[in-house]
Amino acid sequence: MINVGVIGSTGYAGQQLVWYLHRHPHVKIRFLSSHNHTGLSFSATYPNYRNFMQDICIDIQEAEQQLSKIDVLFIALPHGKSFDLAQKALTQGVKVIDLGADFRLTDANLYKDWYDLDHGCPQLLSQAVYGLPELHRDKIKNASLIANPGCYPTASILALAPLLKEQLIVKESIVIDAKSGVSGAGRTANIATLYTECSESIKAYGVASHRHTPEIEQELGLLNGSPLFISFTPHLVPMNRGILATCYGSLRTQISKEALYDCYQSFYQNEYFVRVLDTIPETRNVKGSNLCDIGLRIDERTGRVIVISAIDNLIKGAAGQAVQNMNIMFGLVEMIGLDILPMVP
Amino acid sequence: MINVGVIGSTGYAGQQLVWYLHRHPHVKIRFLSSHNHTGLSFSATYPNYRNFMQDICIDIQEAEQQLSKIDVLFIALPHGKSFDLAQKALTQGVKVIDLGADFRLTDANLYKDWYDLDHGCPQLLSQAVYGLPELHRDKIKNASLIANPGCYPTASILALAPLLKEQLIVKESIVIDAKSGVSGAGRTANIATLYTECSESIKAYGVASHRHTPEIEQELGLLNGSPLFISFTPHLVPMNRGILATCYGSLRTQISKEALYDCYQSFYQNEYFVRVLDTIPETRNVKGSNLCDIGLRIDERTGRVIVISAIDNLIKGAAGQAVQNMNIMFGLVEMIGLDILPMVP
Amino acid sequence: MINVGVIGSTGYAGQQLVWYLHRHPHVKIRFLSSHNHTGLSFSATYPNYRNFMQDICIDIQEAEQQLSKIDVLFIALPHGKSFDLAQKALTQGVKVIDLGADFRLTDANLYKDWYDLDHGCPQLLSQAVYGLPELHRDKIKNASLIANPGCYPTASILALAPLLKEQLIVKESIVIDAKSGVSGAGRTANIATLYTECSESIKAYGVASHRHTPEIEQELGLLNGSPLFISFTPHLVPMNRGILATCYGSLRTQISKEALYDCYQSFYQNEYFVRVLDTIPETRNVKGSNLCDIGLRIDERTGRVIVISAIDNLIKGAAGQAVQNMNIMFGLVEMIGLDILPMVP
Amino acid sequence: MINVGVIGSTGYAGQQLVWYLHRHPHVKIRFLSSHNHTGLSFSATYPNYRNFMQDICIDIQEAEQQLSKIDVLFIALPHGKSFDLAQKALTQGVKVIDLGADFRLTDANLYKDWYDLDHGCPQLLSQAVYGLPELHRDKIKNASLIANPGCYPTASILALAPLLKEQLIVKESIVIDAKSGVSGAGRTANIATLYTECSESIKAYGVASHRHTPEIEQELGLLNGSPLFISFTPHLVPMNRGILATCYGSLRTQISKEALYDCYQSFYQNEYFVRVLDTIPETRNVKGSNLCDIGLRIDERTGRVIVISAIDNLIKGAAGQAVQNMNIMFGLVEMIGLDILPMVP
Repeated sequence: MINVGVIGSTGYAGQQLVWYLHRHPHVKIRFLSSHNHTGLSFSATYPNYRNFMQDICIDIQEAEQQLSKIDVLFIALPHGKSFDLAQKALTQGVKVIDLGADFRLTDANLYKDWYDLDHGCPQLLSQAVYGLPELHRDKIKNASLIANPGCYPTASILALAPLLKEQLIVKESIVIDAKSGVSGAGRTANIATLYTECSESIKAYGVASHRHTPEIEQELGLLNGSPLFISFTPHLVPMNRGILATCYGSLRTQISKEALYDCYQSFYQNEYFVRVLDTIPETRNVKGSNLCDIGLRIDERTGRVIVISAIDNLIKGAAGQAVQNMNIMFGLVEMIGLDILPMVP
Repeated sequence: MINVGVIGSTGYAGQQLVWYLHRHPHVKIRFLSSHNHTGLSFSATYPNYRNFMQDICIDIQEAEQQLSKIDVLFIALPHGKSFDLAQKALTQGVKVIDLGADFRLTDANLYKDWYDLDHGCPQLLSQAVYGLPELHRDKIKNASLIANPGCYPTASILALAPLLKEQLIVKESIVIDAKSGVSGAGRTANIATLYTECSESIKAYGVASHRHTPEIEQELGLLNGSPLFISFTPHLVPMNRGILATCYGSLRTQISKEALYDCYQSFYQNEYFVRVLDTIPETRNVKGSNLCDIGLRIDERTGRVIVISAIDNLIKGAAGQAVQNMNIMFGLVEMIGLDILPMVP
Repeated sequence: MINVGVIGSTGYAGQQLVWYLHRHPHVKIRFLSSHNHTGLSFSATYPNYRNFMQDICIDIQEAEQQLSKIDVLFIALPHGKSFDLAQKALTQGVKVIDLGADFRLTDANLYKDWYDLDHGCPQLLSQAVYGLPELHRDKIKNASLIANPGCYPTASILALAPLLKEQLIVKESIVIDAKSGVSGAGRTANIATLYTECSESIKAYGVASHRHTPEIEQELGLLNGSPLFISFTPHLVPMNRGILATCYGSLRTQISKEALYDCYQSFYQNEYFVRVLDTIPETRNVKGSNLCDIGLRIDERTGRVIVISAIDNLIKGAAGQAVQNMNIMFGLVEMIGLDILPMVP
Repeated sequence: MINVGVIGSTGYAGQQLVWYLHRHPHVKIRFLSSHNHTGLSFSATYPNYRNFMQDICIDIQEAEQQLSKIDVLFIALPHGKSFDLAQKALTQGVKVIDLGADFRLTDANLYKDWYDLDHGCPQLLSQAVYGLPELHRDKIKNASLIANPGCYPTASILALAPLLKEQLIVKESIVIDAKSGVSGAGRTANIATLYTECSESIKAYGVASHRHTPEIEQELGLLNGSPLFISFTPHLVPMNRGILATCYGSLRTQISKEALYDCYQSFYQNEYFVRVLDTIPETRNVKGSNLCDIGLRIDERTGRVIVISAIDNLIKGAAGQAVQNMNIMFGLVEMIGLDILPMVP
């Protein structure tokens, strides 16, 4: 059994993680911590677990004292909060999977530019692995510190990776127009995410300034072999879950739709969680699963390729991917505990 | 392995059934039939199954020819469509679990009154068992023909059963005000269930005339030991899934809230899928699961008890309960294949 | 022109009131106050007004100093906050329309029982008029202090008034099962009303304890000629606006559906804002209007009558009714400024 | 008074048109036609109008015989259905405002390419005016035949017009990623637009092939002074109303955000219905109105400008704009009958 602890277990990503860990056949949850719900049972905050989970949430201090009991620590905190905790865990030989943003950017200066905060332990960055298994599986296997990707980056990078790997598009031409359900904004009392403020409306936000941008650029640049900049626009959609990323790029040379499709099929042929479709994805078809659906179209009139990907932001975009990373790190079958199909409607 | 066939697999209840059967460790799906999607792959209609299910939907005629391959036939058709099929299956020694209404009422005349249709095989009614395991588990064990309860009746009967069993309320006083998500209306092209007609609105329908009424009365009457009539009002709520039943009854004698709670706890103490809460249920906390949550309040000013139950209409109200019945019929552990917790948000 | 001021203008009811006052041909808004948005333009909080409303929100102290400029003060504050303000305004000869709960109950002790608060100015209660024009139009004409009814009470009382006036039902038999959109919970940062907590779910709340109960009982008792108690259960529905009240009562003697319908038609024959339907109401058909739709059914099997009413909780349940009251108080045509039809979808 | 007739009055755009015409102080509705609801009262299909509109829907043949009674005919039919009717009306001296697609493209060959249909009266195209008042007000004044713009084109063209007029962006660089509420799909029984198929999901559709594309290109090309192609991707969002168009273009030369904002302010300075914001638009802030909100951002890292526009698809994207055109054609104040502010929440 893998002994695990979860920091930030009562946020939406945290509880989704608990959901998967609880049913994972090789995992034993040793503690759950929660800043806002310390001392309360986890199922008081999330009554869906009632009768099935008896854990009482502890605070971070207590969690730190229990690091010796666990093999891996999941951290689901806002950016800037993982530095100390990650260091302490690693020092004690505990692996760390951080669902936050603190170890995703390999360049501490870039972190400071985008997060307006000095990086708290830049010396760890060289050992942190960006936990997108479809790109970095081999490194993940031996990693002690995983930077679990952001939700938008997961959808965006998976959508564009084959194009950049094969250098099929003009790297300056990339536009990513992404749409997310409201759970991406977290479980925080906030007027802007009230039902009455989100329902029956759509808006863009963080235009040309969203913090997931450099993370996408880093990974796409690596694939392409040279740095690049993208335009990334997130939107808030009246639904609980799901991200749809509509990605545009100008083709460097003509390519048939069949060849394009083959390129994607080939790139993802061994990937259990990525489905390359001949149709256009809808987020409902991946909701409640760790899957990523990808659809492709060539716009011959403009010479652009349009790639659309769909994930469940809380699963492939957070908790499911974290479990996938854990499975890889601990030598388990990658889809174990994650083999639940999307449920519709 | 239990070999199963599903008739009506592409309706919402049918596909939810396929979802559970597909992941059930002791089940092998031998065929799926669909009137509207014959000859098409199941995953073309429900792309969430893509890559994970290769079945092609057959028609009923072909299904009938494959009855010899299966141990149990699930039928998820509109009322009036199960008569022939059930008979043929039973004749061949195939057990039948009918998710429709054709075998729920033990009285063929009552069926005719409410469904405006002569019952097609009244001789089978005496052997049909009303498949609510919490009430009829012993009979289900040995049954060949299960009438899987309706969604509203499941929520309503489970909410009121302890009160009637203990004769705590005046039997003439029962009012059930129930609210359902739109999936209860099925996957049929229909203006009334368009997004634009349901979103941002609530309405009652079938007031004093809904066909689930006699089914509730039959079961509550059995519990109470004498026939009774109820007022039942269903409502359509802008959500995909879920039923909330708010049930009112006048107490025959005063009872403390503790005694009432104990009565419910005692009645449901061995039931894995029923949770008696000290809080008020929300449908979200059972969504995606076979659970039924029940909450209780006494209104001392009026002498009424108010019992509120919540289920997922497609699961405990249809497909999950059908699998629960199958498990019981085939001597399996009752919750096998059904042990998935509700997922929020 | 009627000069008006609005206290609490940036809550949902307050801003809906501003919406109607702004377009009212005989009204001039002299000030808007807001506790949370003092010093900011109203359109910064509600950008839908941008370009069309330049008002800056003031605080209550400043508002009090401007009482001399106005003819009527609208107060849209939580209960317990209107006492001082109403007194000051009335002393200066300013009429008051209070959208809150402080003057709705004529019995100060009852107020204390339900609101757990001593009434701040019980001496005003005798002059306060319960502002439901369909019942109290004559008193409203000459009133200086209007207690604008709650949203649930408006829907519930209008649904049941004819039955009680004509003493058609057993007064102990009344059950009101009401459903509201989320705007009823106000524009306050609160986890329970986040999009992600309300969407795709329905729940009951305040079971047997909601503060709108005594207000309904007061008015129904007056109509019936003797005090009565009801069972009232509110529910939260995933939609922005709308209340549906499903009301049950046991008929004292048999009555035909035609006679029942005539009773309602007759009771409401001169009411512009009440529509007695031969169909069952949906909240969408009154959304964005000051209308109340009422539908009726007799359940002959149980001897109950079921009356269902639908309103827009922010309009007929709050702001629209307040304007209707103002129109009556100032001798205007009652529907002036309120003649906007519901907009669907 | 302007005497009007409406063809296709029971579709969503048609009924929204009726809503505005009904309250327009200078309009008298002489007939409403409906293919699916002939012989029924309009308020039977749309009960929100109950008590306030007595019209019975007639069929097209009867409508044709009543052309002599009207001054202007509104046609809200699917493409390909307006040819005959428009000709007949024009021949009789009746002005025509076509909300459909048949007269929007000035090139009959382009019409055939995109709609896969021969144009039925190409000789009328030269006199048809593209009814976007902010661009073509002078021509509209004297037009007899107005091609009311599509919903996506209205949002897209208004967003980009100043950029193209001033030739600020590279014309090959335009990407328009647009999102629409479900009412855009019309009031037709269709599985794809059921509540249960749209709720809790987002998808793209018509990628690189949507029929609104050439209409946008035609108008942007005119503004720019030379033909151009765009990439246009529509999406379906779980909300009733609203379009958000997120538009991307590469700046030809650097421009400050202030200069960009001034360019837009200047372009739209006299436009009542266009609001240039310093914030980012949300569709809720224009819902229920004829307004178009526009927000602007420069992405300095990529040299792109991102312009986001929001409209109510049924109003500024259809019915409201049609009334605006009528007002202009008949010499009325342009905003008369359209001066209703957006209503939130």
